[in-house]
Amino acid sequence: MNHFISLENLELELIRDLIDDAISFKKKKAFPNLSNHYISNLFFENSTRTKLSFEMAEKKTGMEIIYFDAESSSIKKGETLYDTVKTLNSIGVECFVIRHTQDRFYEDLISRLNVPIVNAGDGCGDHPTQSLLDLVTIYEEFGTFKDLKVVIVGDVIHSRVAHSNAKILTRLGAGISFATPEFWRDSNMTMGTYTSLDSAISEADVVMLLRNQNERHAQQYNEKNFLEQYGLTKERASKMKPSAIIMHPAPINRNVEIDEDLIEAPQSRIFTQMTNGVFARIAVLNYVFNS
Amino acid sequence: MNHFISLENLELELIRDLIDDAISFKKKKAFPNLSNHYISNLFFENSTRTKLSFEMAEKKTGMEIIYFDAESSSIKKGETLYDTVKTLNSIGVECFVIRHTQDRFYEDLISRLNVPIVNAGDGCGDHPTQSLLDLVTIYEEFGTFKDLKVVIVGDVIHSRVAHSNAKILTRLGAGISFATPEFWRDSNMTMGTYTSLDSAISEADVVMLLRNQNERHAQQYNEKNFLEQYGLTKERASKMKPSAIIMHPAPINRNVEIDEDLIEAPQSRIFTQMTNGVFARIAVLNYVFNS
Amino acid sequence: MNHFISLENLELELIRDLIDDAISFKKKKAFPNLSNHYISNLFFENSTRTKLSFEMAEKKTGMEIIYFDAESSSIKKGETLYDTVKTLNSIGVECFVIRHTQDRFYEDLISRLNVPIVNAGDGCGDHPTQSLLDLVTIYEEFGTFKDLKVVIVGDVIHSRVAHSNAKILTRLGAGISFATPEFWRDSNMTMGTYTSLDSAISEADVVMLLRNQNERHAQQYNEKNFLEQYGLTKERASKMKPSAIIMHPAPINRNVEIDEDLIEAPQSRIFTQMTNGVFARIAVLNYVFNS
Repeated sequence: MNHFISLENLELELIRDLIDDAISFKKKKAFPNLSNHYISNLFFENSTRTKLSFEMAEKKTGMEIIYFDAESSSIKKGETLYDTVKTLNSIGVECFVIRHTQDRFYEDLISRLNVPIVNAGDGCGDHPTQSLLDLVTIYEEFGTFKDLKVVIVGDVIHSRVAHSNAKILTRLGAGISFATPEFWRDSNMTMGTYTSLDSAISEADVVMLLRNQNERHAQQYNEKNFLEQYGLTKERASKMKPSAIIMHPAPINRNVEIDEDLIEAPQSRIFTQMTNGVFARIAVLNYVFNS
Repeated sequence: MNHFISLENLELELIRDLIDDAISFKKKKAFPNLSNHYISNLFFENSTRTKLSFEMAEKKTGMEIIYFDAESSSIKKGETLYDTVKTLNSIGVECFVIRHTQDRFYEDLISRLNVPIVNAGDGCGDHPTQSLLDLVTIYEEFGTFKDLKVVIVGDVIHSRVAHSNAKILTRLGAGISFATPEFWRDSNMTMGTYTSLDSAISEADVVMLLRNQNERHAQQYNEKNFLEQYGLTKERASKMKPSAIIMHPAPINRNVEIDEDLIEAPQSRIFTQMTNGVFARIAVLNYVFNS
Repeated sequence: MNHFISLENLELELIRDLIDDAISFKKKKAFPNLSNHYISNLFFENSTRTKLSFEMAEKKTGMEIIYFDAESSSIKKGETLYDTVKTLNSIGVECFVIRHTQDRFYEDLISRLNVPIVNAGDGCGDHPTQSLLDLVTIYEEFGTFKDLKVVIVGDVIHSRVAHSNAKILTRLGAGISFATPEFWRDSNMTMGTYTSLDSAISEADVVMLLRNQNERHAQQYNEKNFLEQYGLTKERASKMKPSAIIMHPAPINRNVEIDEDLIEAPQSRIFTQMTNGVFARIAVLNYVFNS
């Protein structure tokens, strides 16, 4: 039994194994059989994409899902997260996939309960399955991380993905730079260099766009000018190397972070990321139950 | 792979086949086996009845349902319907049953995506599985459509059912008339004749009541008098031919469209319609995947 | 086919059988096989714990769940409970687990429909599966009910559990007393005696705490002093017999009804109750379908 909380505390070898597993599952290697295991997805912050990707992974491995609705839950009656998880565990739920607004929500659970926790996003902290699917997508494309140039573009300071990916990609040997508006720079980010998208675009192997997290802050920019100033325009995309790829964690603000004509362009891997997300999560479930 | 969008663009022969299939399934013919197929029901307008009828049909054919909750979806973060469907398709959903407030919402999806779409109601447009279940119910009763007299009663202008049914029943050889208050007549409706329920009742084979769509318009009538003026009272029902049947798509406003004592009267097929709805939808799923 | 509405109208022998069944299921006796049966859980009042416990029981017996969402249901369009149940029954749902705010909501359904109804809590009336799981927990502990001293503590007047349990435990031979604040005494409660927790604690075999139903009444007490005045403090718990147990139906208001350090103390059976709830409900489903 393993938790899956963050890529930070995992050995690189294990991360490489998870990537290999995900790619094998995508190539139709038989999925692990987790039938007769009961799982629950506790999303205290909405995320259709991540939640349904987990549900698909769970169903493909034969798991039984106990559907939890945060909106109607006893959390609203003042129950703690611990009590909710302990309760569901008492009725037979054997694994919890949790997204929560609180940073490191999982610490209390892990120290007090003997049930695997999968972090599906904690506050402004980590989102390790998103990172893993990004790694799978990059590795599937390039077969290596070493010396790849990755430019992370946009709302760095509010993005779990930016933080997690910058750390793990650096560990894996890639070079990171950030092309981000001044008002969204993160002074605590110690790795990588700040640049502009115009400077970075022609050298980058991966143009990793972020979502403007408008629901997490007062909008600090003029939406009309954002694409032109900071986003991936067709003009900028035309300067990309032919082998380079475009990524975005979605949902996309069309014509804000990226010109909508580029979303399904040949160099975009945006929907491939979503496909890979299911296989990455199958690899994680396998790790949680079978390692 | 087929879409199922409207009865209008389907050959009569195919519609007859779907009716026959539904009746066979009801008679315990083995259901098609669609196990290992993943489907999602996207209801952007509430409809417990239609949604759960689809879910029952899906489960009876062995499909796996990925549950989508429109309320908590990224549509609320500004995502387009296209992006939502493309996303779910990317994670492995192979068919979409969609109800949406927008007329012809499906055109954009069909032209850009290679995944089957089943229309579960579009704006004030079509609701083809409701039409199909109505056809199944009529055909099961009479064994033919030819020369049947169908009177459609009530809120014609706001009713998807009225429009779809009037068209297809006309094509199938039935005679349509409308017994509708003046304020709900639809001047664009070219087929059928306007009448009063009192004039039509004694000749009708099918008394097809509609639901007053109060949530779609300011209420233009006095609820207390509606039944007496326009609805199916016991007095009016007593003039029906012994072989004639009563239909209503539900949910029913009891004692508004119909005297509540008639809802489960021997001539009512209202709950039979619901039962038939599941078999009609199994026929549609079979058509979508196996034709 | 049986309804399961209240313990009051059931023979003691049957209740003893249900308790035995639940304990057998917990000891890994094969569960009844109810696959290919369709069930729906209609919760018009939120209760994650009870709802998910039923869903777990349903899944463990192989049933298919048709998920009903009260929030988006036609009840909001003015449909009656009867029409909702009749509709779902028409589309193939074969059993209904219902929680409803209205006392004795089930009477109308039972008299008019031929489909099993399981009461998951009616207004201020009964909550028979909660009572059953409490009985299972007590019987598992003591092997008898005869002459056990049970003190029911707290919000008696608003508690379904208090009423149901007091009645059935009295029938089974236990002695009941109530340690409840004056403002929550129920003058209609004819059995048992009123006492204080301080007087009862040292003699009790079962200290059965209730939840302060704050959502059902204006809060009539000072939350800060409640534990000290009326709740289970560590001081009071230290006077319990070594063989005595602590129960609470949850969700718990920590440090209001009970000192939070006691929740998982050796004498607490609070989470055992939840575990037993699933097996109690499997016994009920078995009774509904197989007796």
